[in-house]
Amino acid sequence: MKTISDYRLEIESAIQGLEFPDGKYSSLYEPIRYSLTAGGKRLRPVLTLMGADAFGSNAEEATDAAIGIEIFHNFTLVHDDVMDKSDMRRGRPTVHSKYDENAAILSGDTMLTVASQMISRVADDKLRKVTDTFNDVAIKVYEGQRLDMDFENASEISPESYIEMIVGKTGSLLGGSVKIGAIIGGASEKDADLIYEFGVMTGVAFQIQDDWLDTFGDPATFGKPIGGDINNNKKTYLYISALAQGGQHAEALKSAFEIPSGEMRIKTVTRLYEKAGIGEICKKAVSQYSSKALKALNATSLSEDKKEIFRQFAEKLIGRKK
Amino acid sequence: MKTISDYRLEIESAIQGLEFPDGKYSSLYEPIRYSLTAGGKRLRPVLTLMGADAFGSNAEEATDAAIGIEIFHNFTLVHDDVMDKSDMRRGRPTVHSKYDENAAILSGDTMLTVASQMISRVADDKLRKVTDTFNDVAIKVYEGQRLDMDFENASEISPESYIEMIVGKTGSLLGGSVKIGAIIGGASEKDADLIYEFGVMTGVAFQIQDDWLDTFGDPATFGKPIGGDINNNKKTYLYISALAQGGQHAEALKSAFEIPSGEMRIKTVTRLYEKAGIGEICKKAVSQYSSKALKALNATSLSEDKKEIFRQFAEKLIGRKK
Repeated sequence: MKTISDYRLEIESAIQGLEFPDGKYSSLYEPIRYSLTAGGKRLRPVLTLMGADAFGSNAEEATDAAIGIEIFHNFTLVHDDVMDKSDMRRGRPTVHSKYDENAAILSGDTMLTVASQMISRVADDKLRKVTDTFNDVAIKVYEGQRLDMDFENASEISPESYIEMIVGKTGSLLGGSVKIGAIIGGASEKDADLIYEFGVMTGVAFQIQDDWLDTFGDPATFGKPIGGDINNNKKTYLYISALAQGGQHAEALKSAFEIPSGEMRIKTVTRLYEKAGIGEICKKAVSQYSSKALKALNATSLSEDKKEIFRQFAEKLIGRKK
Repeated sequence: MKTISDYRLEIESAIQGLEFPDGKYSSLYEPIRYSLTAGGKRLRPVLTLMGADAFGSNAEEATDAAIGIEIFHNFTLVHDDVMDKSDMRRGRPTVHSKYDENAAILSGDTMLTVASQMISRVADDKLRKVTDTFNDVAIKVYEGQRLDMDFENASEISPESYIEMIVGKTGSLLGGSVKIGAIIGGASEKDADLIYEFGVMTGVAFQIQDDWLDTFGDPATFGKPIGGDINNNKKTYLYISALAQGGQHAEALKSAFEIPSGEMRIKTVTRLYEKAGIGEICKKAVSQYSSKALKALNATSLSEDKKEIFRQFAEKLIGRKK
């Protein structure tokens, strides 16, 4: 049986093999190639292959759709980076800072359509289900991104709204990735919905974990500077949970965010999070959403040994230690 | 038999009837509604209905796809306006100036996916052909837009490259609109390709005519201020044809574009175009591409009376007098 690393290698090699028109349209396709070759964990297309193999032993049939999903994911990063004015991603200049904003917008649009093209390369009897799932998930991603942007200027955000935002922005695409694989594999509607739920909930647990790592992670393994969210005023699960406690903690936290960006602000906010027991709250939430994911997985008709690779995937993703 | 105005009314009423989620996602969907209700000639969805009715007497079945195409067209306008930094369109602020750039980017992305959703609302046996046609055309539109952007900084552009650009940016979507209608109507592959050619060539003739009207049109009926392209340094068919003549005309034209924007520049450039016989060159090109369009139309298996409405459409579009 294939391992997660096997799938990842397959994806990496399929991406390297992608051909885009050259010549007079190179200014359109160069930024796309640049965006796709930045590396990354390829979580989403790996999930698609896993879904197809688990439900139908036909990962090969799902490769194009898997790549399409990775292209869609990168499209969202390219446009998000423009909207967030982020200059760096994965240690390299973002598309709009390497090229320009117009290239990021137009090549990003092109990526969305190329993604649709690749995702439609499935058998005729799967086409409608696959494209409907993809389009529905894409809409959820935009809605999640819109909530995230609206949160920037919102004074109060409930933890529930925050979860709704990450279900849209992160969870739905992980869910959609594995569901599209499952559909290609021939899963029943019930199984496809259950494995979607597994993906969504794994995504939510992952995002909360990621928020936590941004403050409490190990700088040696986290990959980004610790405290970035605090410095950038990001509304994270930590911040929102702390504010939701109200009272003195909340007031002190708001004041701490008045401290200019830098070490002092990071230290002060981190200490307040510790006092408020935010680490525990995050851990509890991660474990709660992981349980929901596993519950959905267990309810599928998959055999125990086929369930195992999904458990490994979730473990690998969420088990990341500080 | 239905008239072009009948189809346009149907489209207008279907757009008025579109429902988007309200409430917490209104900041995502409000800009979409705003963009879609700006009016316009609805050329593309009208062509879709015409195609479906001519080949299959089933315009109703094509209404969702037609609206999807109009949404796609408006998505390109929303993003183009960001890229061109245009503040006004059809007498109203553009989406990014009414809301902000991020809203224009994200709601534009959403429009592209909503367009895909609506275009996929066709019978199962038409789904692949319709979505493939749509995706292929979308790619051509992006390629055309990219060429257009690259032309801004190009010192020499051949009339052939310019035609290639407008085939992509304008022609292909008109062609795709009517082809998708024809597919839904049940046209043969040959007929679908011929009517696509009709749409593309009509679009090219229309664009050249539009370039010409921008300089030589009647301010009372043109709808935009005359000379806008000259003031904005736009590389139009007029400019490119004049430069292609080389020699003194070309040198004089380059110098004229050194004059600061305003009446003096418009007058000087217009006089040079007149001297170089650019009006005649444009007229010839418009008539040449119109003929190609009609030739393709005549080659379809449509009966004479069904061909007639397409002729009327082309006439109405290109027959616009100064």
